Amino acid sequence: MNVQEYMRDLGRNARQASRQLAAATSGDKNAALLATATILDASRPALVAANAKDLESGKAKGLDAHLLDRLALTDSVIDGMIEGLRQVAALPDPCGEITDMSYRPSGIQVGKMRAPLGVVGIIYESRPNVTIDAASLCLKSGNATILRGGSEAIHSNQAIAQCIAGGLAEVGLPSAAVQVVATTDREAVGELITMAEYVDVIVPRGGKSLIERISRDAKVAVIKHLDGICHVYIDDQADLDKAFNIALNSKTHRYGVCNAMETLLVAKGVATQILPRLAEAYAEKGVELRGCEATQAIISASAATEEDWGTEYLAPVLSIRVVDDMDAAIEHISQHSSAHTESIVTENFTRARRFLAEVDSSTVMVNASTRFADGFEFGLGAEIGISTDKIHARGPVGLEGLTSQKWIVLGDGHIRQ
Amino acid sequence: MNVQEYMRDLGRNARQASRQLAAATSGDKNAALLATATILDASRPALVAANAKDLESGKAKGLDAHLLDRLALTDSVIDGMIEGLRQVAALPDPCGEITDMSYRPSGIQVGKMRAPLGVVGIIYESRPNVTIDAASLCLKSGNATILRGGSEAIHSNQAIAQCIAGGLAEVGLPSAAVQVVATTDREAVGELITMAEYVDVIVPRGGKSLIERISRDAKVAVIKHLDGICHVYIDDQADLDKAFNIALNSKTHRYGVCNAMETLLVAKGVATQILPRLAEAYAEKGVELRGCEATQAIISASAATEEDWGTEYLAPVLSIRVVDDMDAAIEHISQHSSAHTESIVTENFTRARRFLAEVDSSTVMVNASTRFADGFEFGLGAEIGISTDKIHARGPVGLEGLTSQKWIVLGDGHIRQ
Repeated sequence: MNVQEYMRDLGRNARQASRQLAAATSGDKNAALLATATILDASRPALVAANAKDLESGKAKGLDAHLLDRLALTDSVIDGMIEGLRQVAALPDPCGEITDMSYRPSGIQVGKMRAPLGVVGIIYESRPNVTIDAASLCLKSGNATILRGGSEAIHSNQAIAQCIAGGLAEVGLPSAAVQVVATTDREAVGELITMAEYVDVIVPRGGKSLIERISRDAKVAVIKHLDGICHVYIDDQADLDKAFNIALNSKTHRYGVCNAMETLLVAKGVATQILPRLAEAYAEKGVELRGCEATQAIISASAATEEDWGTEYLAPVLSIRVVDDMDAAIEHISQHSSAHTESIVTENFTRARRFLAEVDSSTVMVNASTRFADGFEFGLGAEIGISTDKIHARGPVGLEGLTSQKWIVLGDGHIRQ
Repeated sequence: MNVQEYMRDLGRNARQASRQLAAATSGDKNAALLATATILDASRPALVAANAKDLESGKAKGLDAHLLDRLALTDSVIDGMIEGLRQVAALPDPCGEITDMSYRPSGIQVGKMRAPLGVVGIIYESRPNVTIDAASLCLKSGNATILRGGSEAIHSNQAIAQCIAGGLAEVGLPSAAVQVVATTDREAVGELITMAEYVDVIVPRGGKSLIERISRDAKVAVIKHLDGICHVYIDDQADLDKAFNIALNSKTHRYGVCNAMETLLVAKGVATQILPRLAEAYAEKGVELRGCEATQAIISASAATEEDWGTEYLAPVLSIRVVDDMDAAIEHISQHSSAHTESIVTENFTRARRFLAEVDSSTVMVNASTRFADGFEFGLGAEIGISTDKIHARGPVGLEGLTSQKWIVLGDGHIRQ
């Protein structure tokens, strides 16, 4: 069978399974998740053996230590997958939730019911635990999933897929509810993202180039997350202790994450007070500073270029710009932000209110670290990704982002006059 | 200037204007809508003169009477536009609505704020009143709009655009908040649907082939409405009087509309009771019937082909199928429906509940005519279109569908531990 036929078979099976999943009870879905956890636990030797094949061929291919580390299915990674399954089973089921029911003048009762999207395609890179993460969120939200992991993890992913199949079988859910693509042929991705009759949405998880490529070629909706070029603006009416803590935490709590601050904007009225103190703290943490001319006049920093304002460093590097006021800060953000997360530090009520309304990013904060922009911190319980799009789901995407709302109408024989 | 440069200028201007609109007050937006209404009313001679040019060249091109009728800006069409502007001004402003605020264990307060999408591109066919409808909904929801009407209506649309520009100017909103494409070059559409840096969503309003073409080529999200192949299923536990009224109303209330029933499914247990009565009523209305074999054994109908089950007639034609039970009806719907609107007629509570949960359409009804699937009937106040997609907005799309929700976080100097 060629790759196209193979993928279309997966698609047809997924579509069929999605109907059974939409009709499955919360109890059944949870039971399948918990059964999968038990099977994973009992399958550690098989998982480790499959993973060893991937690690071996990874080493042979010359993958670097970092990538091999991401690929490894250690006991603690398996523990994490089991714990994740239990957590997702414990979350409330979003499907079937009915809201906004009201009677209309015609006498009909109208409202909304939350329903699965249908079939979700997940494309991800080498970490095999994503297979469990993504499958469990899709299953819980009543969606069938087609998972396409990195080719380096093919044996690990197939072994995990067997555990999931076992969990589904135990409660009588169709095995096509979760399908892991068994070929490493790259054409499979091209087919997955274009077979709109079988796939409702694609969630790519990986580097920016992967996501850009998928978004460009997809004929299916993509919940995508590109850069996280996040800003903190310290207003001249900020509490400077809060500003210090937030600016330090947003940059240095973790570097390689999308919700880390990449550019600090400081109102000129407080720049001489706050920047020296921050520069000292950043120096202690080994953060390289790049600043505008006004910044360089106050602290030691290399010159920030135009490119710096648009760069997601994901590293201990920070660009700093002194701005006239909040309007200039919002203007800078609108020009350079990736619309992920921005935070203002201010005690001024009116500016806080304006910043929240006027900054067009997926998360806008007042007096809080950008590091809080995260599904767990927001109480979603789990996160399939963070969307930097405005259509459908925006910001951290949990179970609800994998569903849509249909309208429901209840009548008693009502007809249009 | 070539078309590409021209469109990109519109895009840049719209993006810029969208920021001002996002910051505009509800009062300003409403004032602009009402000022436009006043200017339209005072501009009747200019509007009629511009429209006369379009009608004349339409006749010269040999447009048929139906198309010329849609193109005409009569006094009553202008009255309708003015009334529409006033209605949209009276609707609540969706922007800035804050919901779901809660405190998290970390101490931050998290919730959602509704915000405009940004820039909306509208592509439509000959009716010039769509220019006002679409512009008013986008303006009210805080979005900048680029409108591309049919080339036959170019003079009418430009005259309407001048009225809108006057309304915007009166309250100091940027003229680029509503831009009507001034060229009839078809390349303009291709540019509009692919300049993702300037346009956030496209709403095509027109025939299926237009929408399919746009969806295929767009690099921007499309809120699309394809077919309305709507079903009514008469269960064997239906109240047959309700069933009769709903089946008749769903088909015959209006024919050329997307929420008209195209296929009637009847449980075999009641087919001999309900079908003859319905056939008589349909005959009185001049509805042509096409039936499955079981249907033809009960009433006079031509043979329905496989193609009939997938056809949106938009005409006094109805296909009828006798099915074993509700499961068979749901199976037929899942195979042939366009996922627009389906209705079950039943007195059985459990079946009603299952039908609502398991039928995957944008509107699912119990004991009501499919003709109720409409933004006005649902209380949206206005409708930019009906979406048959599952991503973002589903079913009738009002002001809310032209917005997204961003996350907001309020803190007091909170940092991640």
